[in-house]
Amino acid sequence: MNVAVIGLGLIGGSVLRALAASGHRVLGYDADPATRATARTAAAQAPAAARWQVTPTVRDTVAQAELVVLAVPLPAVGGVLDQLADVGYAGLVTDVTSVKSPVQALVEERLHRQPQRLAGYVGGHPMAGRETSGFGATDPTLFAGCAWVLCLEPRGTSLADWLELAALITPLGARVVPATAAEHDRAVAAVSHVPHLLAAALVAGAADDPLAGTLAAGSFRDGTRVAATRPELVAAMCGGNADAVGPALDAVLEALHRARAAVDADDPIAALRDWLAPASVARAAWPHRPGTARELPVRVDELLALGRAGGWVTSVAPDRRTVTAVRPVRPGPA
Amino acid sequence: MNVAVIGLGLIGGSVLRALAASGHRVLGYDADPATRATARTAAAQAPAAARWQVTPTVRDTVAQAELVVLAVPLPAVGGVLDQLADVGYAGLVTDVTSVKSPVQALVEERLHRQPQRLAGYVGGHPMAGRETSGFGATDPTLFAGCAWVLCLEPRGTSLADWLELAALITPLGARVVPATAAEHDRAVAAVSHVPHLLAAALVAGAADDPLAGTLAAGSFRDGTRVAATRPELVAAMCGGNADAVGPALDAVLEALHRARAAVDADDPIAALRDWLAPASVARAAWPHRPGTARELPVRVDELLALGRAGGWVTSVAPDRRTVTAVRPVRPGPA
Repeated sequence: MNVAVIGLGLIGGSVLRALAASGHRVLGYDADPATRATARTAAAQAPAAARWQVTPTVRDTVAQAELVVLAVPLPAVGGVLDQLADVGYAGLVTDVTSVKSPVQALVEERLHRQPQRLAGYVGGHPMAGRETSGFGATDPTLFAGCAWVLCLEPRGTSLADWLELAALITPLGARVVPATAAEHDRAVAAVSHVPHLLAAALVAGAADDPLAGTLAAGSFRDGTRVAATRPELVAAMCGGNADAVGPALDAVLEALHRARAAVDADDPIAALRDWLAPASVARAAWPHRPGTARELPVRVDELLALGRAGGWVTSVAPDRRTVTAVRPVRPGPA
Repeated sequence: MNVAVIGLGLIGGSVLRALAASGHRVLGYDADPATRATARTAAAQAPAAARWQVTPTVRDTVAQAELVVLAVPLPAVGGVLDQLADVGYAGLVTDVTSVKSPVQALVEERLHRQPQRLAGYVGGHPMAGRETSGFGATDPTLFAGCAWVLCLEPRGTSLADWLELAALITPLGARVVPATAAEHDRAVAAVSHVPHLLAAALVAGAADDPLAGTLAAGSFRDGTRVAATRPELVAAMCGGNADAVGPALDAVLEALHRARAAVDADDPIAALRDWLAPASVARAAWPHRPGTARELPVRVDELLALGRAGGWVTSVAPDRRTVTAVRPVRPGPA
């Protein structure tokens, strides 16, 4: 497949390298000339069979492409979509942005503004963040075993386009998770965005006490690790998903207010034990063990039900009528 | 020194082994016969110069002791103090419990109930928790570089007793932190107890959504790691320190409610960036770099000021008139 990757940071650069290593013809572009130079030098050192090309403009990059992977930060997505529309790009588009509804809205507004829809769009999000960033941190094996959401809207996504992407990505070892943009945004608010806010609040709670800083050990270190992330990145991530982060944070606040009441109870130890017990069971059971792989007919409702059950697709049959699907084994009620 | 260690779990067993390796004569006791057998077998395999003895009763263990180290869970402390009072133990007592004010109150009530004070008491807390537990997990090097609070009350603690313990513990590599019981309890509420509650709340916020469980990755894993701890242990820790945990949790809730308002702001990205920035700077600067070691005169006010500044004692001069003290280098206001 002819693939264009726009944005060569950690995720975009790793997609570029992983697809090149998979035998696809991959061209890459980054707005930063220094990043382009780094990616070009790395290409020259890659094995001939896994080599990519770096082009000086978006137009050159997408000229031959059947698929464009947008791997730029959310604030830059609109501008790149405008460029794709300007050059009349008519292939498939996906992205790797950490929120999906806002990108979907941008695609409707910017790319599908023509009287007829030229390009197809399937939103994507590989859950493969790392502490490091930049092309120097890229890794063609980054996606092995990682969950990679591909958005599937009952109205709006072409199932053929979705399967095309799933067939491209599953060979990288990714667990392709079907979900609507809204389902994705709710889930990542709870497991990724709100944890960043809690980490920052924990740091704030201890920041004025040097003694606390000296006594802080494992639980503080782990609970606050992501608080050191650059605030503009976390703000863009959480603020760009404000509609889902608000309710997710409300749910955590509600739980914490119940904990606060337990601290004030006549028997705080007993009250806290009751409050803590379900989370302890749930956390000990996570991550859930993968169940047996099964064939699943390719239907939007079947795929979305799989995603809602926490399942994922590991391969697409050559005739694209079935996929191989895995559901996690969740512990039963205790 | 003749030392008796009562309770041979991770911390007690490691204290036993570390002090034996330091050349002290150490006897150990645990209420559980299986733990005693394990500790006895391990002693037989230790080098002769670092050997300890395991005794069948508390009475035998403390008969020759100049120092008793209480390393039992908080609910068991009162009973052991009663036993010490019953046998007329008149040496020094310390403990390793994770809250200090409640133990101090128990000592007043149980050990000092005689008309005259027989035993001296200095509360202690090595910040050396691990995921593992039991004598099998013990490690004589567990305390190298670890902060070990020794409580110092302006009225109530004998400075000679405090120095005796500091001189015993600093050779294990521990950073001996002077603090009052109340200061200790406030600090650990913020950096240890509240993080456990936040971890549980994060798990609760995602527990009902299997999709969220599948998309959860690094920030969820780290932010919830301690939520898998046995709930009765966390409840005992937090509930036993309820007076300090309540206000510490209030401070975090206040910060989170400000974050919630930022999510609802007209420009949530800008509002969240402002909210996140101070914590990002603070977390990136933690742990603080140790400053230059300096001699400090042995005075209660000097030692408590050192602890409040996040500093610690690394050694006690042979004449016990000075200690070597280190203060952390904190970044200045940005």
